[in-house]
Amino acid sequence: MKKQYLLAPGPTPIPPEVLLTMAEPIVHHRAPVYEKIMQGVREGLKYLFQTKKEVLIFASSGTGAMEGAVTNTLCAGDKALVVEGGKFGERWANICKAYGVKARVYPVEWGRSIDPVSIAQALKEDPSIKAVFTQATETSTGVLYPIKEIAAIVSRHPGTILVVDAISHLGAAELPMDEWKLDIVVAGSQKAIMLPPGLAFAALSDKAWEFVGKSTLPKFYFDFRKELKNLTQNQSAYTPAVSLVMGLAESLKRIQEERLENVFARHAKLAKATREAMLALGLKLYAPQAYSNAVTAVVAPPGVDGQKVVKILRDKHNLTIAGGQDQAKGKIFRIAHLGYVDQFDIILAVAAVEMTLKELGYAVEMGQGVRAAMEVLTEAK
Amino acid sequence: MKKQYLLAPGPTPIPPEVLLTMAEPIVHHRAPVYEKIMQGVREGLKYLFQTKKEVLIFASSGTGAMEGAVTNTLCAGDKALVVEGGKFGERWANICKAYGVKARVYPVEWGRSIDPVSIAQALKEDPSIKAVFTQATETSTGVLYPIKEIAAIVSRHPGTILVVDAISHLGAAELPMDEWKLDIVVAGSQKAIMLPPGLAFAALSDKAWEFVGKSTLPKFYFDFRKELKNLTQNQSAYTPAVSLVMGLAESLKRIQEERLENVFARHAKLAKATREAMLALGLKLYAPQAYSNAVTAVVAPPGVDGQKVVKILRDKHNLTIAGGQDQAKGKIFRIAHLGYVDQFDIILAVAAVEMTLKELGYAVEMGQGVRAAMEVLTEAK
Repeated sequence: MKKQYLLAPGPTPIPPEVLLTMAEPIVHHRAPVYEKIMQGVREGLKYLFQTKKEVLIFASSGTGAMEGAVTNTLCAGDKALVVEGGKFGERWANICKAYGVKARVYPVEWGRSIDPVSIAQALKEDPSIKAVFTQATETSTGVLYPIKEIAAIVSRHPGTILVVDAISHLGAAELPMDEWKLDIVVAGSQKAIMLPPGLAFAALSDKAWEFVGKSTLPKFYFDFRKELKNLTQNQSAYTPAVSLVMGLAESLKRIQEERLENVFARHAKLAKATREAMLALGLKLYAPQAYSNAVTAVVAPPGVDGQKVVKILRDKHNLTIAGGQDQAKGKIFRIAHLGYVDQFDIILAVAAVEMTLKELGYAVEMGQGVRAAMEVLTEAK
Repeated sequence: MKKQYLLAPGPTPIPPEVLLTMAEPIVHHRAPVYEKIMQGVREGLKYLFQTKKEVLIFASSGTGAMEGAVTNTLCAGDKALVVEGGKFGERWANICKAYGVKARVYPVEWGRSIDPVSIAQALKEDPSIKAVFTQATETSTGVLYPIKEIAAIVSRHPGTILVVDAISHLGAAELPMDEWKLDIVVAGSQKAIMLPPGLAFAALSDKAWEFVGKSTLPKFYFDFRKELKNLTQNQSAYTPAVSLVMGLAESLKRIQEERLENVFARHAKLAKATREAMLALGLKLYAPQAYSNAVTAVVAPPGVDGQKVVKILRDKHNLTIAGGQDQAKGKIFRIAHLGYVDQFDIILAVAAVEMTLKELGYAVEMGQGVRAAMEVLTEAK
């Protein structure tokens, strides 16, 4: 018997009820029943993004909406500032490059967060910067960036928008788009939204929509204005990923029922339990501060290959987590506590890590990590 | 009790077994099990496209791969010839326009096919045309284009590629990519492939890949070279639509088991049965020749609104077909016989059309269409 466990930062586990909804006979996207589903989805997405604006839906990976955020707001030759502290920061820079946007990279050491003051400084030095691109959580390092503080700075610049890749963040931790004055928030289906990959989302502030009006970069499939026009009629510009949208309606209902504040508190508690467990095992966190609610990156102990931890967990314990990417490859392993995950998932994941580390020759007092996790999980608040 | 029937040209019905495969727990796209799925998928797609080349897979609607076919092969200012005989021909022209490609439109009257000689003439007049864009089947009119003949012409021009939107054609009728020397074939998941919408496909000839090497139009998400590089490692450039790919493996297996020649023969017979039934009811076909195996467009009889036919079928008989689009709106209705459809689906669809036309005041001798369909369906070959 092989019972599979998934604690990777995307795809994340999907509630069986949502899977079964997507297994229902497909409906036609021009039928009234689909339009009704879309009405609920539009409301649910506004609740999740904490915005009064419409949230655009694309049949694509999150990267598609990231590309759209660039091509719909900027012109060739425009300047942008890109926060680059991991694999996904690099993606913003690569998209800018592909479209002739001059991206000034603000480098952040992997595993570290950024000082918002330096963003203020950069915008002061070059007020012609049209957009600041960043992640909310850098999935490759498990670092949470100070988006509220960055937004407070960028929102004072009328000629600059803040574009936030919240793909692995949205639904795991606070990110009230309207209240914090974020200009574009991008998300994906396969993280806290508890769906398979295949849907991308983007919401825009009034300020961002003004940029859209002036943008001259070419776009077609990811044309935000065309998509908005169709969305307000509960449709999409091109054939939507109907089954994923059916699942989305179900997932959003679950989030609305649990309520966002409880969803965030759950993620925060699971993240803390994971961190405390790793520390109790004598391990170090890759992000020593600015912890993410979505994923915890753990430094593999001396003499232990992080990739081997991932491999043994997968091959021997049927438990999937993620390794490090690029410069962090082999150095870390990443445990996600994202989406459809509860306290027992964390307990079993910690137990599996303990057993694996022991097998790899790292001295573990069996159960020490699990105990630390349980102590956090039973805290009153 | 409302039992739903779907005979629209996409989304098409999905076999319950495929739906249940997609409802299985999601797997991680970096896991060996996923790579194994991808190996099978790559082979299955090559069989379906009748090509030795790799078939690229994108998480998007078919339109995404259409956009990629333009942006990966051409440069701004390049000339193209677009066969425009319906809604989807217009899409090629719109994509070209969005990216600064000078599209010369070759207009085809809606419901009519094209004379390949005129393509030869156009290429002779202007040998600087870099690409000819066409549909294989124009879904909005139900017309089949003479792709084999067009390809024979274009393949004689070393500086011109033929790009075929086969979204509603592939898997419904013959389209051997390598044998006919097609340069790019684009397809989507929600037609004959019997999946939900959300996957797009593109296969390229060596000649097309040479164009890719010279193309300077900007692209990122739909970057064909990057995707090919990842595909050969059973991966994708960005997070793949895992559940749809799991379903794809299952659907392709079914097509391989039925075998392409039988799949085509089934579609041809169902299409003929539908046509003969409509003619037996005294109705006219919108495409009086060059019939598509995928969808039959029927002219609404005098005094009957085609949209009303669609509405009554849906609201009263729980059967979804498609109406006309744009200039054909109200004038036609379209019955698809595409994908997971068998003889009894056609019989019930014809019966439903008869009942609906009678209700709308059109003189029908009940069962006359059904009888004509049954006669075709029981023909030896």
